Amino acid sequence: MGVMSEKLAPLTLCLILLTSHCDGGNILVYPVDGSHWVNMKILLVELKERGHNLTVIRSSNSWYIPEKSSLYTPVTLQMDDNMEDFFGVYLEEHMRAQREGASMLTFLKLTKHFLSMIGQAHQMWADTLIEMIENQSLMQSLRDSKYDLVLTDPAMAPGVLLAKYLNLPLVLNVRWIPSGEGHFVIAPSPLSYIPVPGSGLTDKMSFIQRVKNILFYGIILYQNRFMVGPSYEGFCSKYVDGGCDVNSLLQEADIWLFRSDFVFEFPRPTMPNVVYIGGFQCKPAQPLPADLEEFVQSAGEHGIIIMTLGTLVDALPREVADEIASAFARMPQKIIWRHKGDRPSTLGNNTLLVEWMPQKDLLGHPQTKVFVAHGGTNGVQEAIYHGVPVLGIPLFFDQFDNLLRLQERGAGKILPLVDVNSHTIEQGLKELLHQDSYRQKIKQMSSLHRDQPMAPMDQAVFWVEYVMRHKGAPHLRTEAYKLPWYSYYCLDVVAFLLTVALLLIFTFVALLWRLCCRTKRTKKNKQN
Amino acid sequence: MGVMSEKLAPLTLCLILLTSHCDGGNILVYPVDGSHWVNMKILLVELKERGHNLTVIRSSNSWYIPEKSSLYTPVTLQMDDNMEDFFGVYLEEHMRAQREGASMLTFLKLTKHFLSMIGQAHQMWADTLIEMIENQSLMQSLRDSKYDLVLTDPAMAPGVLLAKYLNLPLVLNVRWIPSGEGHFVIAPSPLSYIPVPGSGLTDKMSFIQRVKNILFYGIILYQNRFMVGPSYEGFCSKYVDGGCDVNSLLQEADIWLFRSDFVFEFPRPTMPNVVYIGGFQCKPAQPLPADLEEFVQSAGEHGIIIMTLGTLVDALPREVADEIASAFARMPQKIIWRHKGDRPSTLGNNTLLVEWMPQKDLLGHPQTKVFVAHGGTNGVQEAIYHGVPVLGIPLFFDQFDNLLRLQERGAGKILPLVDVNSHTIEQGLKELLHQDSYRQKIKQMSSLHRDQPMAPMDQAVFWVEYVMRHKGAPHLRTEAYKLPWYSYYCLDVVAFLLTVALLLIFTFVALLWRLCCRTKRTKKNKQN
Repeated sequence: MGVMSEKLAPLTLCLILLTSHCDGGNILVYPVDGSHWVNMKILLVELKERGHNLTVIRSSNSWYIPEKSSLYTPVTLQMDDNMEDFFGVYLEEHMRAQREGASMLTFLKLTKHFLSMIGQAHQMWADTLIEMIENQSLMQSLRDSKYDLVLTDPAMAPGVLLAKYLNLPLVLNVRWIPSGEGHFVIAPSPLSYIPVPGSGLTDKMSFIQRVKNILFYGIILYQNRFMVGPSYEGFCSKYVDGGCDVNSLLQEADIWLFRSDFVFEFPRPTMPNVVYIGGFQCKPAQPLPADLEEFVQSAGEHGIIIMTLGTLVDALPREVADEIASAFARMPQKIIWRHKGDRPSTLGNNTLLVEWMPQKDLLGHPQTKVFVAHGGTNGVQEAIYHGVPVLGIPLFFDQFDNLLRLQERGAGKILPLVDVNSHTIEQGLKELLHQDSYRQKIKQMSSLHRDQPMAPMDQAVFWVEYVMRHKGAPHLRTEAYKLPWYSYYCLDVVAFLLTVALLLIFTFVALLWRLCCRTKRTKKNKQN
Repeated sequence: MGVMSEKLAPLTLCLILLTSHCDGGNILVYPVDGSHWVNMKILLVELKERGHNLTVIRSSNSWYIPEKSSLYTPVTLQMDDNMEDFFGVYLEEHMRAQREGASMLTFLKLTKHFLSMIGQAHQMWADTLIEMIENQSLMQSLRDSKYDLVLTDPAMAPGVLLAKYLNLPLVLNVRWIPSGEGHFVIAPSPLSYIPVPGSGLTDKMSFIQRVKNILFYGIILYQNRFMVGPSYEGFCSKYVDGGCDVNSLLQEADIWLFRSDFVFEFPRPTMPNVVYIGGFQCKPAQPLPADLEEFVQSAGEHGIIIMTLGTLVDALPREVADEIASAFARMPQKIIWRHKGDRPSTLGNNTLLVEWMPQKDLLGHPQTKVFVAHGGTNGVQEAIYHGVPVLGIPLFFDQFDNLLRLQERGAGKILPLVDVNSHTIEQGLKELLHQDSYRQKIKQMSSLHRDQPMAPMDQAVFWVEYVMRHKGAPHLRTEAYKLPWYSYYCLDVVAFLLTVALLLIFTFVALLWRLCCRTKRTKKNKQN
């Protein structure tokens, strides 16, 4: 690992000097690679169009973030480890275990593996950040560029730490934080009705489910304490007066652009500096390429089904793909399937395999009846936006939880990987096609989602520029974060009041006792 | 007390039939009289302009709400008691006690008096509501009119109860609820940094202040349990299956249009169905009448000071008015004073007494340097909007708390009634005029307040219409309200987990003990 090649620093500096006279602002972006970048890029395009200058910090072996781009000036950090390889093996193992319906013990082992992997990833990023900070010419050029703010996706923490180090306002484009879900760090989150991510629970929990929820919260605390915390201790003790931790730095963020909303998410307490931009990436459908449109129209009144399992999965296990293909072959619909592996042997004539598909344009096509998906946030948000019911096959991460939010509203159905076979797929598809409630419910979600005072993307841009205009938004942050936990919960006050009450009671009883004894003694004396 | 005159019912019905074909919605409004109505009316004017039909429930002896209006169809409820008389005596007594710097005991007595008065007012409204419901022809006409929603100010509860009875969606135009502040009923409100209204505390509290805050919360609970609750028990037990209480009905509201925002209010946890419309009534200043403009311009570079103590106070104690007048007389500024009582003997030539003044146009006038005010919400919001520092003389209700929010931000200064004399007034005015920070701070608040993605009034209208379009907004309400308190705080789960842990420890210790004893016994046996 190393830092930005020396050649790039002057280029950055040059661009900064060129742009400092623009009307637009100057934004330092520290994104997360992979599907997270897809989201960030959409926001960056919009900010660029509004005349802002963007500098993007990327790793030399970036998965998705190119070095050359008309959108931004890159700052490239030398990194050797590849995040894709990093997760690849785990994901395949996890998928196999799910498929086999493996034991609880296997899943615990996999979770441990996952957590330690997460810990390694954080360590890698923390080390890179420290190397970056030690590169004085780079840091000087960053300082000289007088950024208005840092915009980061805090799924990885270095952007948050860098903002602190450079003493810049901080805007988060966020769905996840290093230790789970951001609301838990900034807003009161009673575990009685707020499900912990990964628990597979909803906001309506039985007693046993609440026990489960609390135990899952224990995993989050463990992850925070032992997997995330130690990675950044080096930075915090060396570069921040009085130390820090990731959560306390997150609490200092000016604005949280949260990639969610309360059509999708269960309602819960929130904070004044949280702006919900769920579905901000969604746009009306564009016409399909002629050949695809022809295929779609050839489905006639039956319409089409589309299927994709996202960017992370190269190939489904062969026998799973065969089962799905044979179910598809029995449907009267036409199917468009984004499929990467070998051609399934059971593939029907009605199924078109594609390497890539214009997902949003297909979801917005009136012929599309069902979306078979893995439940990534982007896909689920697009399904809501376009109002297409989802048959979900969750694979990992937040996918089960995402799909659960559709299923809970009657707008989708989850089919666990272990249960996938040609029969269950066919049944599931028929249910979603013929039970009208699914379509009604997702249409209702779509109408609620689209009915906002301001488009989510406009909100996002507004609040980024707001932070520029006012050099932060500290008036939206509560005093809660400065209190020690016992003061936050008023335990010290309660202890004090209880002590006072006990003292009063004790004094009262003692007085009564004395009075009583004296009366008795007086009586005795009199009797004597 | 009685209900709507029989003549009015057919009129209402008629209007309803006429309007049911309109594009606009049909809104049943249950306002609160007095200064609350001023706010509600501004929203109603906007809703009327958007083509909605309004029916307003008013009392026959209404203070502010006329029977004849082109804005709405009235439903008049016969009431004998006059709210103005009701509060008048108390207010004068309270003002006198403050002026005299009376003892804590006097204030406790006054608080008791106030609470019992509040209790009486609620009882009066609850009785009126029941009489209204018992009037079957009126209720039938209300049902036939197929209202889209009830819009009410929940400072008094009957509108909330009526919405429940008619099974209509509910939108609140709210600053206060019967038991204090609405956030305490719907959102987590840690008392460690959220000051209870009336406590005179900010969001930064010392240990002793937190003790005070909790004790004040005790007053709120007392008020809710003994003053508000009993008033509505009759309604709840008779007309709501399974009973109800005001707070649980408030939790069922679809949208809270909150007359506050986080430029004014200390930041705190909020909920997805709360929309902040603080300052929604504020508008740019219009030109002044010619004679007033001439007076204002005659002040030259010194500018003017304006003073008003709101609508509730007919006259200040004579000696207070004299002190203020003589302070004003010594200022180089010109003064416009909205004053009702006798002409103060010490009045200077620079002071213009008026019965009424165009407050917002004066606040928005560049000549206005300081606003001397009692700290009512409307006045404070207008001062923020126009960026004029406030010298506050709080009299009662929320006025001290309102002014405290300005003082805490360095944008105003509080002068308690007991301290008011010509010297302190002069000192206070000079401080606000010559220390530039006051003006800077209120200008900063003004710029933050005006910098919103959407004007607060447009937000208010949007969300009223949103509730119409979607027939409520239940997806924004949390599950929290359905949980018993011990489940909400997970106390049952914690007790369960502790029991399990103790049992495990006990079993472990018992096993260890047994093992230990057996080993010893075996040894002994061996030794024997």
